[in-house]
Amino acid sequence: MADSLIRPVDTQRRALRRIGPQARPAHLASTGDGHPADAVDGHEAEEILRRTRASVDPELRVALDSLPGPMRRVALYHFGWQHADGSPATGGAGKALRPALVLAAAAALGGPAARDGALRAAVAVELVHNFTLLHDDVMDRDATRRHRATAWTVFGDADAILAGDALQALALGLFAQDPHPASSAAAARLADCVVELCAGQHADTALEGRGPTEVGLGEVLDMAEAKTGALLGCACAIGALYAGACAPDVDALDAFGREAGLAFQLIDDVIGIWGDPRRTGKPAGADLAARKKSLPVVAALTSGTPAAEALAALYERPGDEEDLEGTALAVERAGGRDWAQAEAADRMARALQALSRALPEPESAEGLLALAEFVTRRTG
Amino acid sequence: MADSLIRPVDTQRRALRRIGPQARPAHLASTGDGHPADAVDGHEAEEILRRTRASVDPELRVALDSLPGPMRRVALYHFGWQHADGSPATGGAGKALRPALVLAAAAALGGPAARDGALRAAVAVELVHNFTLLHDDVMDRDATRRHRATAWTVFGDADAILAGDALQALALGLFAQDPHPASSAAAARLADCVVELCAGQHADTALEGRGPTEVGLGEVLDMAEAKTGALLGCACAIGALYAGACAPDVDALDAFGREAGLAFQLIDDVIGIWGDPRRTGKPAGADLAARKKSLPVVAALTSGTPAAEALAALYERPGDEEDLEGTALAVERAGGRDWAQAEAADRMARALQALSRALPEPESAEGLLALAEFVTRRTG
Repeated sequence: MADSLIRPVDTQRRALRRIGPQARPAHLASTGDGHPADAVDGHEAEEILRRTRASVDPELRVALDSLPGPMRRVALYHFGWQHADGSPATGGAGKALRPALVLAAAAALGGPAARDGALRAAVAVELVHNFTLLHDDVMDRDATRRHRATAWTVFGDADAILAGDALQALALGLFAQDPHPASSAAAARLADCVVELCAGQHADTALEGRGPTEVGLGEVLDMAEAKTGALLGCACAIGALYAGACAPDVDALDAFGREAGLAFQLIDDVIGIWGDPRRTGKPAGADLAARKKSLPVVAALTSGTPAAEALAALYERPGDEEDLEGTALAVERAGGRDWAQAEAADRMARALQALSRALPEPESAEGLLALAEFVTRRTG
Repeated sequence: MADSLIRPVDTQRRALRRIGPQARPAHLASTGDGHPADAVDGHEAEEILRRTRASVDPELRVALDSLPGPMRRVALYHFGWQHADGSPATGGAGKALRPALVLAAAAALGGPAARDGALRAAVAVELVHNFTLLHDDVMDRDATRRHRATAWTVFGDADAILAGDALQALALGLFAQDPHPASSAAAARLADCVVELCAGQHADTALEGRGPTEVGLGEVLDMAEAKTGALLGCACAIGALYAGACAPDVDALDAFGREAGLAFQLIDDVIGIWGDPRRTGKPAGADLAARKKSLPVVAALTSGTPAAEALAALYERPGDEEDLEGTALAVERAGGRDWAQAEAADRMARALQALSRALPEPESAEGLLALAEFVTRRTG
């Protein structure tokens, strides 16, 4: 599965490389995220994410440490830096994909100086992402995140809601204090994105409350774009703004992130059904047991095949551990798995097309390409 | 009660007037909120609030209309502009005290042009206030606000949380799009204020969960300052920023709003116990029945009097309609009512002292003074 998905990215990279090698500005002689070329092939994304955490975490800690005690406690727990009792913890802060996209986009369009100047913006985007996670977990009653108990299960709904509110304020406050000429435009873009994320979360909740035959594929794709694509697109657009890019390039970077975000969500949904439980940390078929209307499932339900009818009948009943293999098979027979993989490849191709509008020169796009590969290469 | 509370304001106004009459700049020859002097004595505040609604509402509607459908529906319901079914409604949008303070502060320090320039900022402050109301009602499970069912009771917790999140984003987004030179400083100040409001709401929830003898008066005052004073202070400070005021004047306006906000809360708590149900719209003694640890109650509980012990014993038991008069009497005997009225007068005196630092000339402060009088003159 993963191989069939990364092919378009590699093809595009080769295609982009065929355009070159062109004379490359000295400030871009790097791995594409503005750092000296020391990343190893295949581990490029991991290296970029590691470097992002190293740059972003100190600034993020300063921001979180500025919070009053009760909100700080919830936030540090949520980010995996404290246990519930307030003692120090390590790990669990997430992949830092969104700040990595901010920094990689800034570097791709403006070089290392732009990357360094976008650090506060990267922190703001990570704060917004985590504010939405805190609130989504309350609304969805999700009990586990990043292999740990969610904040609301530990501190209660009120403190999880308040910590999320405070993180949004911190994020937009960071832009307000940032003298960078792009900070206001970036803040306006991020504020719009928050509204879109809210609309996406609303749509998700509303879709889950409807019957299996009452959901269209188009609206589930729209929901996934609002809930996942919007912030990945916004992260890339903000990086472009901090690089001083022109409006069409900023929009191209937004489109790149949005389409890559949809590919990411499609793969995530495939993994949610067929992923290896040892790698996902979730029981096999957990999404099916919860009767989630994920993208492959809705594609299957709306396929007009006999398997779709069987799947709809299964989905009308509450989830049952024993029928999960049969349900997964019905999704596959109705074409849900093939569709999701083809759609992810298509979205990734569109992402790369958008990227090449702003970055016709392949080397400067390498950081962003590595991150795009990373999010679609996962096999759970 | 009301008379004893407004006295310090009138005394201060007379004191401020004794300093004058000085030559008054032409742009301030108005009622103090930047409009021609057409307000009638005693109805000044009502007139300012009415004019504020007339200026703010169209901008507020534009902002809310920019929201995606589901969030717009909840927001328009919450602001009293739509019924639950989406049909138009009128009234119930609240007093607009906070935007009135923004505009009055801008006018006081910069005249009508500054007032006009601060309109977007006034809308942003009103949006933040309403975002916190939406979330507080979810957390506190309050079923009624402004004589209507709260948003979460109509649309569910998730949509009320999301609408609140979206209103915060709208508010900070308005500043990001505002080319006014003060917009970034104002946004930073409002973001800090949101964090303080969250801390205040957390403290409130935590205090309500504790026993009647486990709460100190200082911490309840701190909570009230964070929960109520902070945003009134921030509104005044933002108005000053939009008038181009120097930092000490901005801080003086913040102090004015904070102290007036505490006076406001003290009077609100007095009304919550002894207010006329026909005017409050709530049953007599509702706060006592809910065993709320309001400021007069905590002052009584910590008074060290025999009545304090009797009150603590009453408060250990669940509320009982029949004992409400006795409970109110215990609060009064333990000095809670007298303390609250004296404290409110003291806070208002401090507010006026802070105001006179920034506005030694009395006429220019008239709009702010009228609003301060208004919030403490209420008798429920």
